[in-house]
Amino acid sequence: MTNSKVYAELTDWVKRVHLLGTVAELMGWDEQVNLPPGAADQRAAQQAALAGATHAAASDPRLGAWLAALEADGALTPDQRAVVKVARRDYDRATKLPPDFVREKAAQSSRGYHAWARAKAHNDFASYAPVLAQNLEFAKREARYLGWEGREYDYMIDKHDPGMSAGVIAKLFAELKRDLVPLVRAIGASPVKPRGDALQGLPVEGQRTFLREVTERLGFDYQCGRIDVSLHPFCTGTGADVRMTTRFKEHEPLDSLFSSIHETGHGLYEQGLAKEHLGTALGIHAGMAVHESQSRLWENQVARSRGFWRCFEPRLREVFPAQTAKVSSDELYLAINTVAPTLIRVDADEVTYNLHIILRFELEQRLFSGQLAVTDLPAAWKAAAQELLGLTPPNDREGVLQDVHWSDGAFGYFPSYCLGNMMAAQLWYRALALRPTLEEDFARGDFRWLLGWLRENIHLQGRRYDMLELTRRVTGEDLSPKHLIRYLRERYGVLYRV
Amino acid sequence: MTNSKVYAELTDWVKRVHLLGTVAELMGWDEQVNLPPGAADQRAAQQAALAGATHAAASDPRLGAWLAALEADGALTPDQRAVVKVARRDYDRATKLPPDFVREKAAQSSRGYHAWARAKAHNDFASYAPVLAQNLEFAKREARYLGWEGREYDYMIDKHDPGMSAGVIAKLFAELKRDLVPLVRAIGASPVKPRGDALQGLPVEGQRTFLREVTERLGFDYQCGRIDVSLHPFCTGTGADVRMTTRFKEHEPLDSLFSSIHETGHGLYEQGLAKEHLGTALGIHAGMAVHESQSRLWENQVARSRGFWRCFEPRLREVFPAQTAKVSSDELYLAINTVAPTLIRVDADEVTYNLHIILRFELEQRLFSGQLAVTDLPAAWKAAAQELLGLTPPNDREGVLQDVHWSDGAFGYFPSYCLGNMMAAQLWYRALALRPTLEEDFARGDFRWLLGWLRENIHLQGRRYDMLELTRRVTGEDLSPKHLIRYLRERYGVLYRV
Repeated sequence: MTNSKVYAELTDWVKRVHLLGTVAELMGWDEQVNLPPGAADQRAAQQAALAGATHAAASDPRLGAWLAALEADGALTPDQRAVVKVARRDYDRATKLPPDFVREKAAQSSRGYHAWARAKAHNDFASYAPVLAQNLEFAKREARYLGWEGREYDYMIDKHDPGMSAGVIAKLFAELKRDLVPLVRAIGASPVKPRGDALQGLPVEGQRTFLREVTERLGFDYQCGRIDVSLHPFCTGTGADVRMTTRFKEHEPLDSLFSSIHETGHGLYEQGLAKEHLGTALGIHAGMAVHESQSRLWENQVARSRGFWRCFEPRLREVFPAQTAKVSSDELYLAINTVAPTLIRVDADEVTYNLHIILRFELEQRLFSGQLAVTDLPAAWKAAAQELLGLTPPNDREGVLQDVHWSDGAFGYFPSYCLGNMMAAQLWYRALALRPTLEEDFARGDFRWLLGWLRENIHLQGRRYDMLELTRRVTGEDLSPKHLIRYLRERYGVLYRV
Repeated sequence: MTNSKVYAELTDWVKRVHLLGTVAELMGWDEQVNLPPGAADQRAAQQAALAGATHAAASDPRLGAWLAALEADGALTPDQRAVVKVARRDYDRATKLPPDFVREKAAQSSRGYHAWARAKAHNDFASYAPVLAQNLEFAKREARYLGWEGREYDYMIDKHDPGMSAGVIAKLFAELKRDLVPLVRAIGASPVKPRGDALQGLPVEGQRTFLREVTERLGFDYQCGRIDVSLHPFCTGTGADVRMTTRFKEHEPLDSLFSSIHETGHGLYEQGLAKEHLGTALGIHAGMAVHESQSRLWENQVARSRGFWRCFEPRLREVFPAQTAKVSSDELYLAINTVAPTLIRVDADEVTYNLHIILRFELEQRLFSGQLAVTDLPAAWKAAAQELLGLTPPNDREGVLQDVHWSDGAFGYFPSYCLGNMMAAQLWYRALALRPTLEEDFARGDFRWLLGWLRENIHLQGRRYDMLELTRRVTGEDLSPKHLIRYLRERYGVLYRV
């Protein structure tokens, strides 16, 4: 076979393995949206069978042979090299982990989830601690199998964000923390207080209509996607079939609206990938931090802007005339941009959210280095929450037990959220520099320039570049928290007069 | 390995392959219920990737080794022998067909579907004839690969109904036809004419409520299933996750009701399989004819009975007081049991439906024996329709082009529908003999005895016995059309005074 033939075989196979992954995602979506209550075990068995078949395809020896042939070929184009590199990474992950380990880890992950759910319900960290310690051990073993001995936490980070490391993050977060903590304190001390009751009792049908109009206007293509209801909002799927979910609460309409705009950001990224390359490095996302940069940019920089609301406020008032009658424009805008420290990450505003991530990153580092024992986590969490947020959790349920991630071994995932916020702000100022009238576009309901720019510079780049390189290429400078700080100061400094 | 260990390995693997099949079914359901319009190609690619992975699992050489070891073991229980026999059949089908043939046939099947859809839309059989001839050739080649040389049509029948053959069907259908044709003529000549407008303008929400109450009362477990809307009604899934669909038309409320009861019959079968054996011969259905016997029994013998309507008529009038005010009980019951020959199979009543199947069976036999050329099909169809139904299709769209089945090579499938009708009637009289008060149960809204009896005698039997053996075991006699004739005469003879 010529190498162009080999390359065609490789990409064809990689795309097929990726498609099997999208089938698993679809079943996950179905589980949260449609599954009959009695079918949970059957669905778990379906997922296990599919995972086995997918692993067989992902570790097929032919892949190894094609990769070896292509890696020895000096004549590959940069795009081809990117495809081979990512395929190698995935192939190694599929083949270097002993099957017994994979099975044990899957079982452990399922045990972990149930142990966590029980512990959270009963506010009983002690019962969960041994499982968490085992999760940590499994994560370290996985890292070592894949050649990351001594850099186990870096492996966990790289797993979610290729090319990223704890050292880089530590530096970025230290700088962010330095400026963010005083800003949060200042906002807390501000006499400006948003009305908590600005929007109450908005019927679900109206919310649905408004939300659909907004997300469609932002550019989400409902010919190639849909939105449904689930307990927790999420976005899944890729290419021509991207599915978002939301939930509706009559007294918290901003929750469904902003979470849907957030998921729309994820969805626009997946809909914007190069269709002909779906599944290879040229047609998959660049990692979780870049994904979050897209969801955060649309949710925060765009949808909390004055321009955005100049466009949509009249329509909101039209759909809900009675409920909005007693709210002024300024009160509405302030309610949309409420900042107040909270103990719970998922309830946090966009300013304090970053402190929640810094807290988790610091604890994860100490867990992996051995400086912190699992049994000492609750106390360490409380101390950190007091230091960073000025709040001490009254119990572990509102502290160390609040998040699901660690229960199935997803260490190293949290930093993606904050890195995404940084990248979003940095992209935002670059976009503004290129198109200073951006907010005027928004006021006219026109989001096409921004989406077009992201399509070309982020979405269609796929996984050619890691997050740091991609940021550099698009914005002309290294990733830095200074843009996020500037953005938060500009937006909230004015609003809260600090 | 001991043979009990080997047996455990075999069943575990067989169940996994079956689960992969249920994933494909779920994607098929999703395609008809949820798929965004732009995602058709992506879904086709997902199904192809999954089919490849499933075929790899189904043809795994370990299966062959386990089967050989177990087939040489004289100490297997009857249940174990049934499991091994069905696993062997599936393994042979997965391994004896050359991969190139499977791929070509899949492509041909897709081409066939589109050629048929186009031909039907333009009433242009000539453009479809070459594709249909190729389909016939592919079917024959498949039969020969699997060792059915000279009995190709028997293979196609056995594929859908294990153990059944064209010879057996020909005998059964000849007897049925002899008695059915005069009955249809007599009903046609009857002065009794149902009101075509008995139920008009029933709002969809009310239909949904009524239909849900009826299907739930029949025993469909909505904890382990659901009902949605699609263009064509169908039922898919198994065990704890069975999904039916329907469609609502305000002026044809009986269409959605009866098609849903039909699908409920399929659903009750799948929900009634032995959960711990799902996927092996002990926990899969016995073939399409037995499946149809279940759907038809609930749709016709049960839901067109006087007892059933004594229970549900008051509720129907409660949900739709205005629309039912001008319809008497007798008019309603006659409308439910309308008989009138039609050119279109899917619109046919339960009496004339069988003639549609006999027509197709006779043509399929002649196609496979070479007595009839594909190009002569339209004329042969018209002649047969005139002979059997007393109607001549004015065009091929209402004749030979009406059904999708042949377009993707599903020859030998049609007989299942009529065999199912026969078996349903035979089961019905056996049930009545055991429980003469059955219709009084129905009048009280109690369907538990019948369901319990079917569960024990049909559903929980899985694929241990073929259709003929199963019928013999449950009813004490060979499958015969005389019960269907008796049933049709009893029900329609009285109604139409013939």
